[in-house]
Amino acid sequence: MSKVLIVHAHPEPKSLTSALKDHATTTLRAHKHEVQVSDLYASAWNAVASRADFLQPVQPDRLLYATESGFAFAGRSQSADIEGEQEKLLWADAVILSFPMWWFSMPAILKGWIDRVFALGFAYGVGEHEGERWGDRYGEGTLTGRRAMLTVTMGGHESHYGPRGVNGAIDDILWPIQHGVLFYPGMEVLPPFLIYQSHGLTEADWPEVASRYERRLEGLFTDRPIPFRTQNSGHYDAQQALKPRLGGGGGSRGPAALCGRRREFPVRTGKYREVSRLSGRRGGRRDRNPTASPGFRREFPGAPNREHFRGIRERNDIAAVEQGITEGLHQVCRPSVVAVRRQ
Amino acid sequence: MSKVLIVHAHPEPKSLTSALKDHATTTLRAHKHEVQVSDLYASAWNAVASRADFLQPVQPDRLLYATESGFAFAGRSQSADIEGEQEKLLWADAVILSFPMWWFSMPAILKGWIDRVFALGFAYGVGEHEGERWGDRYGEGTLTGRRAMLTVTMGGHESHYGPRGVNGAIDDILWPIQHGVLFYPGMEVLPPFLIYQSHGLTEADWPEVASRYERRLEGLFTDRPIPFRTQNSGHYDAQQALKPRLGGGGGSRGPAALCGRRREFPVRTGKYREVSRLSGRRGGRRDRNPTASPGFRREFPGAPNREHFRGIRERNDIAAVEQGITEGLHQVCRPSVVAVRRQ
Repeated sequence: MSKVLIVHAHPEPKSLTSALKDHATTTLRAHKHEVQVSDLYASAWNAVASRADFLQPVQPDRLLYATESGFAFAGRSQSADIEGEQEKLLWADAVILSFPMWWFSMPAILKGWIDRVFALGFAYGVGEHEGERWGDRYGEGTLTGRRAMLTVTMGGHESHYGPRGVNGAIDDILWPIQHGVLFYPGMEVLPPFLIYQSHGLTEADWPEVASRYERRLEGLFTDRPIPFRTQNSGHYDAQQALKPRLGGGGGSRGPAALCGRRREFPVRTGKYREVSRLSGRRGGRRDRNPTASPGFRREFPGAPNREHFRGIRERNDIAAVEQGITEGLHQVCRPSVVAVRRQ
Repeated sequence: MSKVLIVHAHPEPKSLTSALKDHATTTLRAHKHEVQVSDLYASAWNAVASRADFLQPVQPDRLLYATESGFAFAGRSQSADIEGEQEKLLWADAVILSFPMWWFSMPAILKGWIDRVFALGFAYGVGEHEGERWGDRYGEGTLTGRRAMLTVTMGGHESHYGPRGVNGAIDDILWPIQHGVLFYPGMEVLPPFLIYQSHGLTEADWPEVASRYERRLEGLFTDRPIPFRTQNSGHYDAQQALKPRLGGGGGSRGPAALCGRRREFPVRTGKYREVSRLSGRRGGRRDRNPTASPGFRREFPGAPNREHFRGIRERNDIAAVEQGITEGLHQVCRPSVVAVRRQ
C-alpha cells in the first residue's frame, strides 16, 4: 500500500473542492493507502516567502532568498513549517494538489507553499552541471519516483479551455505548474482531474463527479503519466535547447514533422489510415502511423507500441487508440512546439 | 502627462528587481509622469483571499469567494486594502507588474494581490453575455484604455526559455499572466521587460540594464502592444472557440495556414520573397506576404500594413520588418495554436 499527500487550498470547507479533498481521503484509505492532508487554509499556512523563513541567515543584511534557502535546507535551519512539508513530500509516493483555478493559476496560498517548501537543494539546484547535463531536473531530482496530479475546479466552460478556446488550451495554462513545478523536481505527472463549470453543479451531480474522481484515484499508481521529455535523456544540447532533429524543428521527415498535427488525425472517420487499419478498415500505408516508425521507437522507447494498440483493437476501443497516439505525440512535442489544430 | 502604477513584489529592497522598480519611478517622473508604487512586501500586503475580505458577507455560513467579492464590490463593503488598490488601477494609465520569476510564475504575494483586487464586477463578470458575446473581457472591460507590462527578473538562461528551450518558451510561460490576468480585464499588454541570469549580473552591468529599461519605459505609451485576439471582434463562436477559418485550423489557405510558421521566414537570407522584395531583392510573388493579403487585412485591420513596411524599408531596418511580420502573425495565432520552429 502506498502513501499519498494531498495539498489542499480552498477557504471554504463546504466547497466542492473541499468535498473532493475529503472524498479523495476516504477513497484512498478505503484502498488501504495512507493519506496525509496539508489543508493550507485550515492550518493558516504562511504564503509569503521572507527572511523569517531562515533561522540562521548567512547574509542578514541582504536577502538572497534562493541562496539562503539553500543554506537553510543544508544546515537544517529552515522555518519548522517548511521542513514539515518537505518531510511530507519525502514520505509520499504520490502528491495531489487540490485547488480552484483562480486567474489561470493556483490560489496564492498554494503558490506560497511552492515558493517556500521547494527550497534550493531540495527541489532545484540538485545534481551537477556539466555540458548538456543541467543538474537533476525535469524527470530527475529529489522527488523522483513519486507521482503527482492536479485536481482543479473551474468556473469556466470546457469549450473555453479547449484547443481553440478563448482562454487558451488547458494543457498550456497548466504547463507552468505541471511541467515547471511538478516534473521539475522529478515527479511523474498524471493528466489532471478537472471540473469545469463548478458553480453550476448541484447535489444531483455529485455521484457522477465522485465516481469519476474515484476512477482517477484508483489509477493513481497505474495510469500513464504525461510523457514529458526528460532533460538528461540526450534530447537537449548544452544550451538546454532541444536538439535539431527532435521536436518541432526537424523539417518534414521523422517524428519532428508530426508536431502541429496532434489533433488532426480524423480517427473516427477512418481517414487516418493506420488507425483505420487498427480499427479494421485496411488500405493505409504502414508508415503513416507516426508512432510506429523506427525513428520514433528509437527516440521514445516508452511510447505506446504496436502491442499496446493491438490490445486496444481487440477491445475495439477507438478512444484508447486516439489517446495512445495523442500521448505518443505529446512526448515528441512540448506545448510551445505544438500547433494544436481542431476544426 | 500620464499616470503609472508599479506593483512591486520583492522581499529585498537591495535586490536587482527593487533597483529596477526605483529606476522606473525615477525615469518615469523625469518624463513628467505621475507614479504610484504598491510595494507589496514593504506594505505587508495580505496575500490570502479569505472571508475577512468582505465586511458585510451575504452568506456568512458558506464562503463563495467570487460571489461575495461581487456583492462587496457593488456594495462598497470590501476590505479597505482591496478598495485602495482598485482605486489605483482606475487612476492609472499604465500598470507595471515588477517581480522575480519564482517557479514559472509570480511570487505568492503578487498572486494574492490579483486574487483579492481583481474582484467580480471589477475585473471579471463585467458586461452582458449574449450568444457569441461573453461579457466584456479579453480586450474589453473595466481597465480598457490602460497599458500593462511585466518586468521580470529570472535566474535562468535565455536559451532555456527560448522557443526550443527546456523550460518552454517564455511567451507560453507568461501566457496565463499576460493574456489571462492583464488582457482579460481590458488592458493592452506590452511585450515584457525580461532580465535573464539575474544572479550573474554585477555593478558593471547595471548601466546597460538601466538604459535598456529606460528605452522600454520611454515607449510605455507608444510601443506596439502584443496583438492578442479580442473576444468580441467576431472571431469566437458561441462556445467561445475560435471560428473555423481563423487561427490554426484553416487548412492550407488564408492567414490560418500561417500558424506554426511564425519563426520560419528566413528573412535574412531573402528566401521569403515578399520580405526580400521589401529589402530590395525583387522576384517574389506578392501574395507570399501573408500580412498583405486582403483576407488578412479584413481580419486584422490593425496589423502592420504596407505603409508600415514601406517606412521600414526606407530606413533599411530588416529587424523591424521581421518584427512586423511576427506581430502580424501573432495576432492570428494564439500560443496554443502556434508551432514555433527555430533551428
